[in-house]
Amino acid sequence: MAKDKKLVEAITSMDVDFAQWYTDVVKKAELCDYASVKGCMVIKPDGYAIWENIQAELDRRFKAAGVQNVYMPIFIPESLLQKEKDHVEGFAPEVAWVTHGGLEPLQERMCVRPTSETLFCDFYAKDIHSYRDLPRVYNQWCSVVRWEKTTRPFLRSREFLWQEGHTAHATAEEAEERTIQMLNIYADFCEEVLAIPVIRGQKTDKEKFAGAESTYTIEALMHDGKALQSGTSHNFGDGFAKAFGIQYAAKDNSLQYVHQTSWGVSTRLIGAIIMAHGDDNGLVLPPRIAPTQVIVVPVQQQKAGVLEKAYELRDVLSGFRVKVDDTDKSPGWKFSECEMRGIPVRVEIGPRDIENGKAVLVRRDTHEKIEVSLDEIAAKVGELLETIQKDMLERARAHRDSHTYSADNYEDFVKTIEEKPGFVKAMWCGDRACEDKIKEDTGATSRCMPFAQEQISDRCVCCGKPAKKMVYWGRAY
Amino acid sequence: MAKDKKLVEAITSMDVDFAQWYTDVVKKAELCDYASVKGCMVIKPDGYAIWENIQAELDRRFKAAGVQNVYMPIFIPESLLQKEKDHVEGFAPEVAWVTHGGLEPLQERMCVRPTSETLFCDFYAKDIHSYRDLPRVYNQWCSVVRWEKTTRPFLRSREFLWQEGHTAHATAEEAEERTIQMLNIYADFCEEVLAIPVIRGQKTDKEKFAGAESTYTIEALMHDGKALQSGTSHNFGDGFAKAFGIQYAAKDNSLQYVHQTSWGVSTRLIGAIIMAHGDDNGLVLPPRIAPTQVIVVPVQQQKAGVLEKAYELRDVLSGFRVKVDDTDKSPGWKFSECEMRGIPVRVEIGPRDIENGKAVLVRRDTHEKIEVSLDEIAAKVGELLETIQKDMLERARAHRDSHTYSADNYEDFVKTIEEKPGFVKAMWCGDRACEDKIKEDTGATSRCMPFAQEQISDRCVCCGKPAKKMVYWGRAY
Repeated sequence: MAKDKKLVEAITSMDVDFAQWYTDVVKKAELCDYASVKGCMVIKPDGYAIWENIQAELDRRFKAAGVQNVYMPIFIPESLLQKEKDHVEGFAPEVAWVTHGGLEPLQERMCVRPTSETLFCDFYAKDIHSYRDLPRVYNQWCSVVRWEKTTRPFLRSREFLWQEGHTAHATAEEAEERTIQMLNIYADFCEEVLAIPVIRGQKTDKEKFAGAESTYTIEALMHDGKALQSGTSHNFGDGFAKAFGIQYAAKDNSLQYVHQTSWGVSTRLIGAIIMAHGDDNGLVLPPRIAPTQVIVVPVQQQKAGVLEKAYELRDVLSGFRVKVDDTDKSPGWKFSECEMRGIPVRVEIGPRDIENGKAVLVRRDTHEKIEVSLDEIAAKVGELLETIQKDMLERARAHRDSHTYSADNYEDFVKTIEEKPGFVKAMWCGDRACEDKIKEDTGATSRCMPFAQEQISDRCVCCGKPAKKMVYWGRAY
Repeated sequence: MAKDKKLVEAITSMDVDFAQWYTDVVKKAELCDYASVKGCMVIKPDGYAIWENIQAELDRRFKAAGVQNVYMPIFIPESLLQKEKDHVEGFAPEVAWVTHGGLEPLQERMCVRPTSETLFCDFYAKDIHSYRDLPRVYNQWCSVVRWEKTTRPFLRSREFLWQEGHTAHATAEEAEERTIQMLNIYADFCEEVLAIPVIRGQKTDKEKFAGAESTYTIEALMHDGKALQSGTSHNFGDGFAKAFGIQYAAKDNSLQYVHQTSWGVSTRLIGAIIMAHGDDNGLVLPPRIAPTQVIVVPVQQQKAGVLEKAYELRDVLSGFRVKVDDTDKSPGWKFSECEMRGIPVRVEIGPRDIENGKAVLVRRDTHEKIEVSLDEIAAKVGELLETIQKDMLERARAHRDSHTYSADNYEDFVKTIEEKPGFVKAMWCGDRACEDKIKEDTGATSRCMPFAQEQISDRCVCCGKPAKKMVYWGRAY
C-alpha cells in the first residue's frame, strides 16, 4: 500500500495549485513529455490515442459535411506570407524561419507554416477558374509552428497538431453559412463526444483572427474558472481573394472574387478534456473519447482461474475498447494507475466474485461501485458508459452555469472577476477602448458575443454608453 | 466527342516518353500539383484519399502487431543530429535549417526532421529505465523534409508524408525479428492491397541506411522496367543506443544497451501504384485502395427515370465506395474522366438498360464490358472488384517475372541491363568495388540480396571471384 499511496501523493491537489496539478496530470497520466526542443512536446501513446479518436470522429463529421482532405507544403515563402497585410502583421513575429537548404543559403527565406491561409490562397488562385470549380471545401490535418515565448503542454506550444479547413465560395452568404456550419460541428462534437459544454459566439474585432472579417468561437470553462477558446471559424469575405487574385467566371461570364473561410481545432482540445473533467486522482476521460474504456483488474490473480476469468471478461466486453491489467503490480497500485489514466470503467474480479458469479464495476468519475452479475456484464457496462458520458456533460454544464455571473455596473463587474473565477456576462458598447480598459483593470478579455444574446441592461458595463451586445468576459488560457 | 478526345489526347503515351506519361497522369488524374515552394507538392483530394486508405490499412496492421502511435517534435537541434556519426554524414547535406524564431536568431540552429532516429533516441534515453519498459514499439505519421536537388511528384520531393517506426528492444534477436516482421507487413500490404509484387531482401552495405547495421527492403518493378524501393526496415543493433546512452536495468540488475530498429513507407507508394498499374488512358487503381471503387454513369440522363435509377443503384451499391457522376458533361467525357482517375468499375445505365432490367459494368483494367441483371448487380460488382484486384496483382507479377533476367558473365550482364529494362539476377563477391564498377558501367545498382537466394553460378558476375550472394540489379528511381 505504501507504493500505491506514493503514486497518488505525487499529484498536487488542484485546489492547492491548479497549474501544477495540470502539469502533474499531463506527466503522470503519460499524455506527453517535454522534448529537447524547447517549447515542443513529445506526445506519448495515451495522449496520441486521444488525438486519434478526436481526429476519427471529427473527420467523419467533416466528410458528412462535404469536406475533402488535402495536403499543402510545410513551408511558406516570405513573399507569400506578406501578401495579405493584416495576416502577416499577426503572424510574422511568431514564425520559425528556414534560411538554408542543405549546405546553401536560400534565395528567399521561408517560414514553417503557422497556419496555411496563404498557401491555400496561392493554390486556389491557380486552381479555381469557373463557378463549376466552386465551392472548394478543403481541410488538412498537420502540425503548425508558432514561436511562443511561454509554453504549456497542449495549451500553448511551439508546435502543435491541428486541422485547418480552408474553403472558397461563390457568394458571401454561402461563406457565412459554411463558417457557422463548421463552428456548430465543433460545438456539437465538444458536447456530444468530449462532454464539454461550450458557448457559441462571435469574437470582437479586437480578438478576431488576423485577416478575418469575422471570427466565431466556442468557449469552454475549465475547473479553475478560466476560459479556454476551443475552436474557431473565420469568414474572410473577399479580402484574401483580392490580395491573391482568386477569381472565377460566373454563369454570366463576369469575373468575380471568391469568398473564403477557414476553421480549426487543435491538440489544445486535449488540454480542455484534462481541465474540464480531471480531479485530484488524475485524468477523467469521457467514454466516447477514451482510448481504453474499460479495464479489467484481476484481484488475487495468482489464484487458479482468476486470470482466465479476466481474459474471458475481456472477450465478453470486446464490443468496447477493453484491456486487462495482468501485470505483476498489486491491485491497489493498478487501481491508482487506471484512475490516473482516466479509464471510465474498472472491472474488479477476484476469486470470491467468480464464486458468486459477480464482478464489481467502478466508475472513474464518481468512484461509485456497482455489483453486477457476470451474465449481464456487457449490457451493464454499455449502460454505465452511456450514463458516465451523460453525467460528465451535465456535471461540466452545472459547473459552468454555477460559475457564470452577470454584472450591470462596473464595480460589480470588477469585483466579480476579481473574486469569482468564471464567466461574467455584461453589456458592451462596441468600443475597443472599453475592452482595453477591462483588460487592464481585471485581466479579463471578451471571450465572445454569444449567439444567444440576453439583455442584462441597456448600457455598456464599462463606459455607460448605449450597449450594442451582451458579451461573455473572463480570464483565459 | 471532340471534347472527350482532347482529354485523352492530353496524355503522352508511356511508350513515347514514360517520364512525361507519369507527369501527365499525376496532373490529369488530379493527384497532386506543384506548389509555389520549389520541390514541394500540393496533394489534391484524390491523391490524399489514396494516402488515407494506405494509412488506414497499414495502421490497422501495425496495431495488430503491437505498434503504438506517438508524435515527436518537427525540429532537431544541430547537436542532437550530430550525435551519431554515420547518421549525420548521411543527412546533414540535405536538411533545411531553421535559424530564426520570430524576430530573433536562435542560439542553436535546428533542422526540420529528415527522419527522427535522433529524436526517438533522445526520448528513449530519458524514458527507458528497466527491462519492464521494453520493448518500445512506437510509430509516427508525419511529414519530413529532405532538400533534394531534383524532384518528381511522389517519387522524390523536398517534403513528403510517411510513417516512421522506431523501436527499442532488450535483445539483438528481438530487434532483428521486429525488423523482418515490419518488412513482411510492408510486403504483404503491397501485394494484398496495392497489387504490387515485391522482392524482399537485404541491402548491401553500400546501399544501407546511414547508421544502420543492416537494412532490409522491398523492391518493386515499374512498367518501364525501373526498380522502385518501396519500403525499408533497419536494424541499428546497439549503435544508436551507445551514441545516445540508452540503457536499461536487466532482470539481474546489470545495465544493458537496448537494440533498435526503424522502418518506414511514404507517399512514394502512390508513385508505385501509378507506375505499376497505369496505362495510356491514365491511372488504374486496385479496388482495395481506390477512393472510389464504383462510379455510376447515367446515359441520356435527361430522360425520365435515368437519374433516379442511377441514384437507386448508388444505394444498392452502398457496400462499396460508390459515386454517381450526375454532372452535365457528356457520357463520353465522363467515361474518359473516370478512366483517367482509375476508378476500377464503371456502371453504365441508360433508358434501354432500364427497360431491359440490365446495366453494363466496365472494367477499368481490361476495358471489358459485362452486362448484368439489375437484380444481382451488387453481388456481381463485388465479385468483379475481387477479380480485378487478383488480376492486377497477377498481371504485375507476370510483367515483373518476364522482365527479370539472369546473367552469369559480365558481357551478358551489361548487355542485358543496356537492352532489357528490368531486374537482372547475378552473383556478387561482396566487394564494394564491384558495385561501384557496375554502377559506373551500366547505371544499375544492387537493389537487394533477396531472402530467396538462387545459385546462378559460383563466381561474381563482375570480378569472377567466389560469389557470396545472388543480387537483384537494376536501374532505379
